[in-house]
Amino acid sequence: MQTTALEKQLHFLREIDRLKTVVRQSPLLDKSRKENSAEHSWHLAMYALLLNQYASGTVDTNRVIQMLLLHDIVEIDVGDFPIHGGLSSELQAEQEWKAADRLFGLLPSPQGKELLALWQEFERAETEDAKFAKALDRFQPLLINVFTGGGTWTENGVSLEQVFSRYGPVIKRGAPLLWSVCERWVVQHFARQASEKSPGTS
Amino acid sequence: MQTTALEKQLHFLREIDRLKTVVRQSPLLDKSRKENSAEHSWHLAMYALLLNQYASGTVDTNRVIQMLLLHDIVEIDVGDFPIHGGLSSELQAEQEWKAADRLFGLLPSPQGKELLALWQEFERAETEDAKFAKALDRFQPLLINVFTGGGTWTENGVSLEQVFSRYGPVIKRGAPLLWSVCERWVVQHFARQASEKSPGTS
Repeated sequence: MQTTALEKQLHFLREIDRLKTVVRQSPLLDKSRKENSAEHSWHLAMYALLLNQYASGTVDTNRVIQMLLLHDIVEIDVGDFPIHGGLSSELQAEQEWKAADRLFGLLPSPQGKELLALWQEFERAETEDAKFAKALDRFQPLLINVFTGGGTWTENGVSLEQVFSRYGPVIKRGAPLLWSVCERWVVQHFARQASEKSPGTS
Repeated sequence: MQTTALEKQLHFLREIDRLKTVVRQSPLLDKSRKENSAEHSWHLAMYALLLNQYASGTVDTNRVIQMLLLHDIVEIDVGDFPIHGGLSSELQAEQEWKAADRLFGLLPSPQGKELLALWQEFERAETEDAKFAKALDRFQPLLINVFTGGGTWTENGVSLEQVFSRYGPVIKRGAPLLWSVCERWVVQHFARQASEKSPGTS
């Protein structure tokens, strides 16, 4: 019985190795290549460990870490949906919920059910833990874009207003102090961009 | 005051982005490339989350996860020391402890001191949490080698006896049931290797 549970767990752990091959839009900070979703998940867990004091509500840091470790594994089946992409969010959600059922269904019960519930809690973004986790998941790529001189914003022709509307509400809701830092960064970034485009007018 | 703490934390989070560029000896399971230390750390945290029931002692899974998330960040300064490499373990430890001082020293106190202590606990491998974390850190590459038909063992001409002596004690100490699975895998792997080398005698 225990061996069967272990076999299922090891199958799941081999299956999620594929998250290392899911490439995201964001680059590494040294711009040598794009980030993958496994190392992104590691980095987000470190963000949660270090920045929990900036959560808007009272959070259980360890639950947030667990949530962030598994928040992207559905991408093994459906790929990464870029924030600046055009796909309908209903279709995306439908595919991701199906993928979560398949993946967590590989695990023995009740473990699989518990982790599925944690993933669903993240997706619903209603609890304090999930709101903070969601805020970090927006904060990290914003930080990358700022510290790589534009990143996916430059690639996709994203404006200051679009950055504010696509990142702002989620970060502000879960980590207001982090958003106040972001606002400053974003304004400075786009001011610099504008002055580089029109050096004579600066 | 709080802003200063946040600046230090964000500096640290940018600094550890470099763990994504530290390449390990082990391949991904699909053999498309070598694994890096950031995604390895993510995977190990998932191992701890899923396999905590097999720890030899009573462990705090969340502490083990935190330990594994940060266990390799010293490699940012000193690189990965392969298990089948020849470097003296004293020299390696000396370099790693120095790197840990520098990296965790970037963080505000007491956060930096607490995480340094957690990293040191992992390195000392004396507590139940650290013994289990160390066992997983040996178990994951062994699993990769078995499921990629040899991996770093084939590359380095490692024998069954060397696998038993280099992985066995650490895995057995922290997760005896996992070691019993490993023993079976390793024996089967080397038997298959032998029969492929001498097909006439099998």
